[in-house]
Amino acid sequence: MLPDRTAPRSTRSAPKAIQVSVLGPWGNLPMEEGSGGVWEVTTVPLASDLYTYRYQVDGQTGLDPLNAFTRRDVGTVFSLVYVDGGAGDLYQVQDVPHGAIVTTWYHSRSTGSDRRMNIYLPASYDGKKRFPVLYLLHGSGNDENGWLELGAAARIMDNLAASGKIVPMIVVMPNGNIGAQAAPGETSDNLRFRPVSSDRIPNPYRPLTFEETMPEIVGYVDSHFKTIPKKTSRAVAGLSMGGGQTLRIGMDFPDMFDYYGLFSAGLRRLDDRDGERAFQEFDEALLRQKKAGYKLYWIEIGTDDFLYERNIRLMQSMDSIGFPYIYTETAGGHSWSNWRHYLTEFSQQLFQP
Amino acid sequence: MLPDRTAPRSTRSAPKAIQVSVLGPWGNLPMEEGSGGVWEVTTVPLASDLYTYRYQVDGQTGLDPLNAFTRRDVGTVFSLVYVDGGAGDLYQVQDVPHGAIVTTWYHSRSTGSDRRMNIYLPASYDGKKRFPVLYLLHGSGNDENGWLELGAAARIMDNLAASGKIVPMIVVMPNGNIGAQAAPGETSDNLRFRPVSSDRIPNPYRPLTFEETMPEIVGYVDSHFKTIPKKTSRAVAGLSMGGGQTLRIGMDFPDMFDYYGLFSAGLRRLDDRDGERAFQEFDEALLRQKKAGYKLYWIEIGTDDFLYERNIRLMQSMDSIGFPYIYTETAGGHSWSNWRHYLTEFSQQLFQP
Repeated sequence: MLPDRTAPRSTRSAPKAIQVSVLGPWGNLPMEEGSGGVWEVTTVPLASDLYTYRYQVDGQTGLDPLNAFTRRDVGTVFSLVYVDGGAGDLYQVQDVPHGAIVTTWYHSRSTGSDRRMNIYLPASYDGKKRFPVLYLLHGSGNDENGWLELGAAARIMDNLAASGKIVPMIVVMPNGNIGAQAAPGETSDNLRFRPVSSDRIPNPYRPLTFEETMPEIVGYVDSHFKTIPKKTSRAVAGLSMGGGQTLRIGMDFPDMFDYYGLFSAGLRRLDDRDGERAFQEFDEALLRQKKAGYKLYWIEIGTDDFLYERNIRLMQSMDSIGFPYIYTETAGGHSWSNWRHYLTEFSQQLFQP
Repeated sequence: MLPDRTAPRSTRSAPKAIQVSVLGPWGNLPMEEGSGGVWEVTTVPLASDLYTYRYQVDGQTGLDPLNAFTRRDVGTVFSLVYVDGGAGDLYQVQDVPHGAIVTTWYHSRSTGSDRRMNIYLPASYDGKKRFPVLYLLHGSGNDENGWLELGAAARIMDNLAASGKIVPMIVVMPNGNIGAQAAPGETSDNLRFRPVSSDRIPNPYRPLTFEETMPEIVGYVDSHFKTIPKKTSRAVAGLSMGGGQTLRIGMDFPDMFDYYGLFSAGLRRLDDRDGERAFQEFDEALLRQKKAGYKLYWIEIGTDDFLYERNIRLMQSMDSIGFPYIYTETAGGHSWSNWRHYLTEFSQQLFQP
């Protein structure tokens, strides 16, 4: 297992092997055989973060057999490690008051089915006091568990609330794949539903989109939890596909949310504005949203992201009609490392008095 | 991935390998190389159940690289597969109303710390109607997630409730390791807390035992959820270590529960009754419990279980003082396969009018 320090030295016992390497965001790093069949390598110093990695032994890629902690990302299972001393501390459990996670099913009238959702309740939630709500949407290939398992959303909220950096809030994580009731393994298809990118999940409710079901999600949450059921106390944000959904939700329901976050937003339908129902009357929709008003429209992306140019074009389009937003760009690409960081930044700007 | 059928034919692509086998409850089954580097084996017909397995390729044991679904049991991660057509159907998600899972932290006054707990709320839980409660305890090396992840407790409850075979109930799954606040990875020790058997987790609160903290768990649940807060509507059951805890809880708090389930109960302290505080006045405690009364005392174990003889001796001891119980024995040993089956049997006998 990779130890928790700035320059992890990875060791692996594989006495029969010929070639051993460790795969992660640092690439595929060849390891060298030391004494007793233990293979080693020292990475460059790694920034404090949550990392996932795998080993390759003679061409067979697999988990670290000495590490019991894993994370699934779409269809691949990885070993998990943290590097302490910075952002990684925020993504781990600290000795602070912890919120609760409610994993529940709500009935969707528009699909006629029950759908699974995770709801984070802050540590100070006592069933009496009311809280603002952040709706947090996942990317393609992920599901209602993504922001908890890879996004560390509950830990970020616990730790930022404990240090007084955020207004304590409820965080709602629905499943944004309209054709799936829940995460792979949690639907009645069980293990036959193998995790795939979201565009490979058939949508039997066409032309219904996930975005159009947002009012029933908000309605469920407002009627089952102690929310402040007002626009001024609601935010919506999403990564990649979920960022594109956030864009659309703002246009379709301009009176629902006062805060919007587009993290590395998936905007490919912007390329084909004429052919797509979703983006007809695009400018008109944004102008209606502007007229309805909002407190924050936050766009953030990494300069290496394959969606970078499309996000730039989106902002040019917004500029042309005078649609206000705040833009921040970071290093890096389309990664959970960035999305955890974006959530950390975005959440601190919400619901401040 | 092993397909879902009665006689699974396992296939694995490993063109460079020399020896490939599949490990599971069927043992370590050598596979044969077929065409295109695909290795195959056909097991004997397997009973419908949830199975975990791993592959061994040239001496390296690891997960099925084509199966994204895994389960951790103590310190080992396994690949997951179901065999349909019987009990395995009960352990999978069916198209029935689903209950919710609340993962929350309660403050333990006796340890001065917050502790993590999972609570299943039945699909018919609406915040108004009140429900009886089953407290369900895990075994050594497991934690508050064990009954959900390996015990399929939520699916069993959903499916039995949907077919009218149980009285819908709340199921409370606390962490029975008094020295641990939560499951490995979910405490402020994060990944430094590697999963180990429970007797290797130091207890800084000695001589306090988990069993002695049961009233604060029941108090928390009764004050935060719509329970029927009465002995007649409370059950406690546990597997292995949790079965031993159930025995002790009944003796210490005879007015709290009307139903007891000892599943393959861990009873090693019975061997040393004189030396152990916990089992001093053992007979007297059972007689007090008998006098206080209860509706069901259920003992179940597999005939191959290494704890079988100890459970027989426990029942002889109970017989000698006229302590009533119902005993059922099954085939098999100390396994989640048995514990899922025992929960299925036990839960149907609870809270019936």
